[in-house]
This record gives sequence, structure tokens and C-alpha cells, in this order.
Amino acid sequence: MSHMQGWAVQQARQPLVLGEFDLGPLGAEEVEVAVDYCGICHSDLSMIANDWGMARFPFVPGHEVVGRVTALGPQAKGLKIGQRVGIGWTAESCMHCRQCLSGHQNLCPESVATIGGGHHGGFADKVRAHWAWAVPLPEGIDLPSAGPLLCGGITVLKPFLAYRVSPTARVGVVGIGGLGHMAVKFARAWGCEVTAFTSTAAKADEARGFGAHHVVASRDANAITALSGSLDLLLVTVNVPMDWSALMATLAPHGRMHVVGVVPEPIPVAAFALIGGEREVSGSPTGSPVDIATLLDFATRHDIRPQVEMFPMAEVNEALRHLAEGKARYRIVLEAGRG
Amino acid sequence: MSHMQGWAVQQARQPLVLGEFDLGPLGAEEVEVAVDYCGICHSDLSMIANDWGMARFPFVPGHEVVGRVTALGPQAKGLKIGQRVGIGWTAESCMHCRQCLSGHQNLCPESVATIGGGHHGGFADKVRAHWAWAVPLPEGIDLPSAGPLLCGGITVLKPFLAYRVSPTARVGVVGIGGLGHMAVKFARAWGCEVTAFTSTAAKADEARGFGAHHVVASRDANAITALSGSLDLLLVTVNVPMDWSALMATLAPHGRMHVVGVVPEPIPVAAFALIGGEREVSGSPTGSPVDIATLLDFATRHDIRPQVEMFPMAEVNEALRHLAEGKARYRIVLEAGRG
Repeated sequence: MSHMQGWAVQQARQPLVLGEFDLGPLGAEEVEVAVDYCGICHSDLSMIANDWGMARFPFVPGHEVVGRVTALGPQAKGLKIGQRVGIGWTAESCMHCRQCLSGHQNLCPESVATIGGGHHGGFADKVRAHWAWAVPLPEGIDLPSAGPLLCGGITVLKPFLAYRVSPTARVGVVGIGGLGHMAVKFARAWGCEVTAFTSTAAKADEARGFGAHHVVASRDANAITALSGSLDLLLVTVNVPMDWSALMATLAPHGRMHVVGVVPEPIPVAAFALIGGEREVSGSPTGSPVDIATLLDFATRHDIRPQVEMFPMAEVNEALRHLAEGKARYRIVLEAGRG
Repeated sequence: MSHMQGWAVQQARQPLVLGEFDLGPLGAEEVEVAVDYCGICHSDLSMIANDWGMARFPFVPGHEVVGRVTALGPQAKGLKIGQRVGIGWTAESCMHCRQCLSGHQNLCPESVATIGGGHHGGFADKVRAHWAWAVPLPEGIDLPSAGPLLCGGITVLKPFLAYRVSPTARVGVVGIGGLGHMAVKFARAWGCEVTAFTSTAAKADEARGFGAHHVVASRDANAITALSGSLDLLLVTVNVPMDWSALMATLAPHGRMHVVGVVPEPIPVAAFALIGGEREVSGSPTGSPVDIATLLDFATRHDIRPQVEMFPMAEVNEALRHLAEGKARYRIVLEAGRG
């Protein structure tokens, strides 16, 4: 038996309240992790608001956990007490279905999200996860800023891994926010020519600072038209409607528009836009444990850090409001602040 | 100088009229081909009606040409007088742009279609093409039925080539018509498990005859729902609106919906449908000369023949009407009928 103290949402859109939760006995394949830092992701806001209809209340949000292993179930593999680990969107997968056995554990139909589906997340003093999903952190990683890599980071890096994007590719990143600013950093470190699309003129210089070679106003039809046929990968990190036909037209032959933002309305895709240049439209959710480990190594080797604002965990409600108001520059991390 | 006799469309949607055309001097890299057979493709109807706004009248339709080389320009490579060749949608490409030099000559921005853009097609006694686009026909191919392979055939086989589809894949083919019936035959010969989607109950047995393991009524929502999450490749050969969200839901994780029918309205694609299973939506136009040669070898080795109805070329208007009325089973070939 183990008790956890966490900031829980009691019902949709309500402020979080600190409470104590009985986690029950540790599962045979589970690990327990003491939280040092936890990033805040836009999907925490979506789950708190129950925008996707998936939330079961009460639950503790937070799924960009950086911490240390404090307990291991008897069948937990590959980890040691005291080891630094990260936990992202997924806390468990079945490990025996076709997707899990193929290394696509993030697509497991029985997977359990770290938050909202009966599992408590990282706005807490401890979190549990299946051992496979407590991913060891490499030596030398910057711990305070590492949290956002575990969900936001892998979300934007996944297409580079999945489609083996070439460093010769011309990459566009639509939306320079929590996801997009990491995408620019990763694309630059990947060796690509990077174009940032932002609707916020004030972000142009910052986007260049993150590594963008070019910055385009995402509502400037002429500027977008000037890019026609030039991009090999266009990574869409926003979750608002865009001029999709103009964005599709920026793709080079064999270009791909990859969507990681949960755009609520269906994206209209013209058959001619696909057929004419053998173009593709795709999407992906986070990544597998190996994807995450690969990302952590790459980020550490290239010293890619999310740009974060730190809040004490006790100020989680202020931090959530800051994010909801679009003020985060560019990602928020809560600090557990144990002595 | 060379004169050609061909069936020309004088203005949109008018019956074809036999006329004589001056082709001018043969280009240095051109070949001239005496037409033995020419298939009729749905895109001939689209160009005759100027549905895509690309047609320049008058022009001679027909872009599934089977014939013999009768003249070679001085720089025409790799062909001999008398050689059997096929000509498909593309008659010329620039050969020096990035796409051409990469082997993607079908994506050349300067390419010239065999019909409608100032070039005359195969409803004629002779046709010209750049040497690269007069693709040698392999020994043993069935000449009368080969024409439809050159446009319709490569259109449906291209995704198998481009994405290296595995013979272990579960493949759906939407629409069992001129394109779709060839897609079923190719998918079956490729080693795949094949599901045909047709709105015409009477075609179910024929679809099985072409090689489909399963046949589903494409307007039967329950039958489509039963396929949820099962297909690796869904090949859309129709050009009418469908229940896209139901079709997308048939895709397995990492599944791909590939569009080769020119669906006039944008296809609505939900971000969640892409993201949840790392799914893709794509399209492609015909193929390169090497794609076509590869197809011809594969079709000959597996004896894959389009199911055709033969018309004398002099009955081209009747044949076009037969196709426009949806009566073709499943592809029409005009026979030049020289003595």
C-alpha cells in the first residue's frame, strides 16, 4: 500500500485541489517514481476540460514526469532503485498485442494514459508506470527542462524517426508554441532547412533563435504561396483551422504534411493535391519507449532543451492559467521542491 | 513532315470527328508509333468534357497506346524500328529537372500529357512520344488487352511500388471498375489479402473472379464498420464522395488510404483518425517509365490482363458512350484494324 499526494481535478474545468490518494499495492510489473519535475502539456488542459470526452474524474494531471525510481514490482525489468527516469503520455501497455510486440507500444489498444483514464499523473509526489514506460534518462541531460521532451518532444520528433527524414529535407513547422518551438530545435539539429510558420509576429525572432532559417507569417497568403512546392515535411503543431489548401501547396513532390495537433474540424484534403505530386498527409501520437529513449539520447547529445518557465508545484493552478491564456514561453515545468 | 489521321474532339463534350493532322518534323528525341490498339480511360472522358480545365481543342484523345515504332529521331535512345511499345498518360518530360533526373519523370513540371495539352493521342493511326515514354513491351504480353495497363494499370500499381507494399498486407480496393478491377488483380498477384468494396451488388462475383477474397458493399455502413482497424492499404479508385470517415476507420495502425480517383470535393480527414494509429492519406499519378516497364514485366509474368471489350476504332464514339454510361466491363480497347 502506498499513499500519494497530488493535485487533482474533481470535475471538468475546475481548479486543482491537493489531495491524498491510496494507490493500492504496487503491480508486479510496475515501478513507483518520486517526482522531481513535471511539465505541463496542452493535453493536460484538454483532459482537465474533458474536451475529448475521455476523462474520468477525479484524476491528477501531469504526464511529463522527471523523477527517481523508489519502488519496483517483482517483475519490473531493467530498472534500479534510485535510477532517474521519465514518464510521458503513456503509463502502461499490454506488452503482448501485435503493436506492443512490434515495438509500437504507443499504439497498444489496451494502453493506459498516464492521466485521466483511471490513472494519476505527475502533479504529485509520486507516479506509477509499467517498467517499460519509465524510460531511463541519459547522463548529462538537463533535468529541470527534460520533462517536456517526454510528451511534447517525442510528439514532434516521432515523424523524423518514423519516416527517416533526411537531413537534406526542407522542413516547415506550423505554430511556434510548446510543441512547435521544440520541433524547430529538433529539425535544426537534425540537419534540415527549417521554416517556421507563426501567426504571432513577436515570435519571429525567437523562432530564429530556436534555429529556424526562415520565418513566415502563417496568415500571410502571399508568403505561403511563395513557398509553393518547396517543403519535404510540413509539421502541423497547431490545433486550430488553417488555410489547408495553401499549406498543402507548400509541399514539394513526395512532400508530407504531418499533423500532431488535434485539429478539431476534419482537414479538407483535395485529391489533386495528393495525386499531382505523390504527396502524403499523416499523423502520429507520441512514441514508443525506444522512440523516447532515442529522443533523450539525441536531445542530450545536441543539448536540445525545451525553453521552459518554472513554477513551484503548489502554484499549479496559476501555471495552468498561464498556459491556457497562451502566455507560456514556451513550455511550463512544475518543480516538486522537496528539500 | 508526317500526317496523322485521328479522331479529334473539336470542342468540349462533342462527338469525335475523323480528321487529318500535320505533325510537323519529328523531334530529335521523339519516336513515332503506329497504333495497333488504344485503350479508353475515364480521363479521356474528363479531358473531352474539359472537366479539369486543361484541354486545348482540337485534340485526339487516347493514351493507352499499343503499337510499333515506325520512326526514330536522331537522338532517340534504346528503341528500334518495328519494336513493340506502349505509351501511357505522359508523352514527354524534360529529362533534366530534379524529378526527371531522380527517376520521377511522371512528376516533371514540364511534362506533356499524351492528350489535350497540345499533343495528339492514340485514337489515331500514329502517335508520337519522347523515346523514354515509348516503353518496350515484353515478349509474351497479350497485345490486345495491354493498353489499359499503360495508364489505368500503372495508376493502381504505383502505390505498391512506391511504398513497397508487403505481400502480407491486407488491401482494400474501393470501386470495382476500370481501375479497381485491375487493382484487385494486381493486389492478388502481389500476394495480398484483398477486400473489394463495390456499390454494385452484381459485381460481387466478378470481383471474386478477379481475385478478391472478400467483397463488401461500399454503401453498407455496418459491413464497413466490421472491417475497423484491419486494412493496411485502402486504394480508392472512385471519383465520387464516399463515407470517408468510415473508410478511414477500416485502416489498421500504420494503414494508408491511397487516392487515385480524382474525387472532386476535398476529402475531410479527421486529425484523430491520422494521429491515433499513425495513419496516412496519399495519392499518386500514373508512374515513371521504369514503373511502367516494371508493371509490364510483372503483369506478363503473372498473366494479369485487364478485362476488356474491343471496339473497332471507327466506333470510338459508341465506345465512349458505352464507357460514359457506366456499362464498360471493365475496360474498353479500340482496335486500329489495319489489314
